[in-house]
Amino acid sequence: MSLPANLLFGKAALLGVGYMGGSLMLAARTAGCVTTVTGFDVDQAAGLPAMGRGVIDSMATNPADAVKGAQLVVLAAPVGSLGALAVAIGPHVEPGALVIDIGSVKSSVIESVRAGLSPATAFVGCHPLAGRESSGVAASDPLMYQGKPCLICTDAAASVDVERALAFWQAVGALPVRAEARAHDAFMAAASHLPHVAAFSLAHALLPQAEELAQAMPAGASPSSLRDTTRIAASAPAVWRDIFLSNRQHLLPLVDALATSLSTLRQAIATNDATALQTFLTNGRAARRTLIGDGTPGES
Amino acid sequence: MSLPANLLFGKAALLGVGYMGGSLMLAARTAGCVTTVTGFDVDQAAGLPAMGRGVIDSMATNPADAVKGAQLVVLAAPVGSLGALAVAIGPHVEPGALVIDIGSVKSSVIESVRAGLSPATAFVGCHPLAGRESSGVAASDPLMYQGKPCLICTDAAASVDVERALAFWQAVGALPVRAEARAHDAFMAAASHLPHVAAFSLAHALLPQAEELAQAMPAGASPSSLRDTTRIAASAPAVWRDIFLSNRQHLLPLVDALATSLSTLRQAIATNDATALQTFLTNGRAARRTLIGDGTPGES
Repeated sequence: MSLPANLLFGKAALLGVGYMGGSLMLAARTAGCVTTVTGFDVDQAAGLPAMGRGVIDSMATNPADAVKGAQLVVLAAPVGSLGALAVAIGPHVEPGALVIDIGSVKSSVIESVRAGLSPATAFVGCHPLAGRESSGVAASDPLMYQGKPCLICTDAAASVDVERALAFWQAVGALPVRAEARAHDAFMAAASHLPHVAAFSLAHALLPQAEELAQAMPAGASPSSLRDTTRIAASAPAVWRDIFLSNRQHLLPLVDALATSLSTLRQAIATNDATALQTFLTNGRAARRTLIGDGTPGES
Repeated sequence: MSLPANLLFGKAALLGVGYMGGSLMLAARTAGCVTTVTGFDVDQAAGLPAMGRGVIDSMATNPADAVKGAQLVVLAAPVGSLGALAVAIGPHVEPGALVIDIGSVKSSVIESVRAGLSPATAFVGCHPLAGRESSGVAASDPLMYQGKPCLICTDAAASVDVERALAFWQAVGALPVRAEARAHDAFMAAASHLPHVAAFSLAHALLPQAEELAQAMPAGASPSSLRDTTRIAASAPAVWRDIFLSNRQHLLPLVDALATSLSTLRQAIATNDATALQTFLTNGRAARRTLIGDGTPGES
């Protein structure tokens, strides 16, 4: 499959050298969209494993140097830092370059990045719905975005730039879909950010007895119920700190709804109210079925 | 592998015809421990799919009839009903028969079942750490217990009966481990029951917008974060109603700890306190790592 000229970026810049951006660079190399990549990260130590994994060819010591000569700039740092990164690279982005981010929150990111870049610079906010709780660039996987939806925000972007971003995500194997930032953020607050709140809270609540529990695991195996409900609590704290703060307008009412549900459940247990408890659990199961369908069986 | 005579039960009774007990009967048939099975369930409609799946040969209309002639009696109904079942079968259990349960709570179950049975009847409380959120006897799987730990409670059981129960679970492929009921219940409250509280609460909190969210799933796919954190909310409400109530002494303090963690997290988000949030999430991730190890990667 030959690529159109506007996807032959040649050099790319990866700002934020981690697992998500690293996987995207590997996929972009495989697709032939990029030939060389310069990285920048506040943690300069990310450079060595990124070069070892073939993600980047070199590390720059500042973001402005990284974007020199790059026709594709990928902002892949925690979302709270993207506004400052945009300010730092703003005057240095090459004419004709495409700037995208891959953050999990879109309204605040698009606003802050757009404000930092020159009005002439093409910027499209993107959010690939892929990835894992693993962090660290050494785990980068060129197939991570294969067949995965990627939301492309049309907000504050010229349609020619949106088309280019869509074509790029298609080239790396994703299923790009147009989205509106505010609707995206409301959806993700419920479908992803609240589950992360629940998982981190559950793991946090077990911290005082975690050692003791780990030693008591029968036959050394943790129950899959515990494993699955806490899986995403293994995600990078800095990433989720920024997501929770950047999307708090949508997230807080849902956290309150979760607290209310938990309190309702607690009350039914404490008062030995089998009827209320049965109703609560039946409603919970109904919500799960509506959200996920019949679901994929796994162990509990 | 030839079985010792005390594992050749011949006829078995399955009281509570569902997925967990059905899987055990299939495994026991495969192992040669049982040749015929009579079922009883308050829901007589479970009989047809159970016979179709080869789990039982016939349904009894009451528990006393089911245990007649049975040398193995498996109590597999929701734990809250096991005391009453024991009373119903008490005078009818055959001499020499082994009675076991497979409930997820042990202290209260052992106490109530023991009270219902004749002192001469052998009863051993068991808890296989296997199963799925699927419910319904038609999904029964003869390999479900293969390689899975099974806790065998030594409380209020003669050691010869404990040995027989251990040998039975070994014969069906499980890894039986001796346990003490109270320690079991404290462990399971944290490692399994609290995760179920979290999953049901999360799903319940999303109930008002579940339809809307389901329709908004990009490319029709739900995020795996939502899928995994709510997976066990697909479990049978009556089963978990009884588990939560039967183990509430151990569970309630943990539910309170979860509510406190959630409230701490909410406060850090609401006050935009990046430092407190980072600390919270780092602690949550540390707890997860201690509990599960490096974990198995999955998508988020």
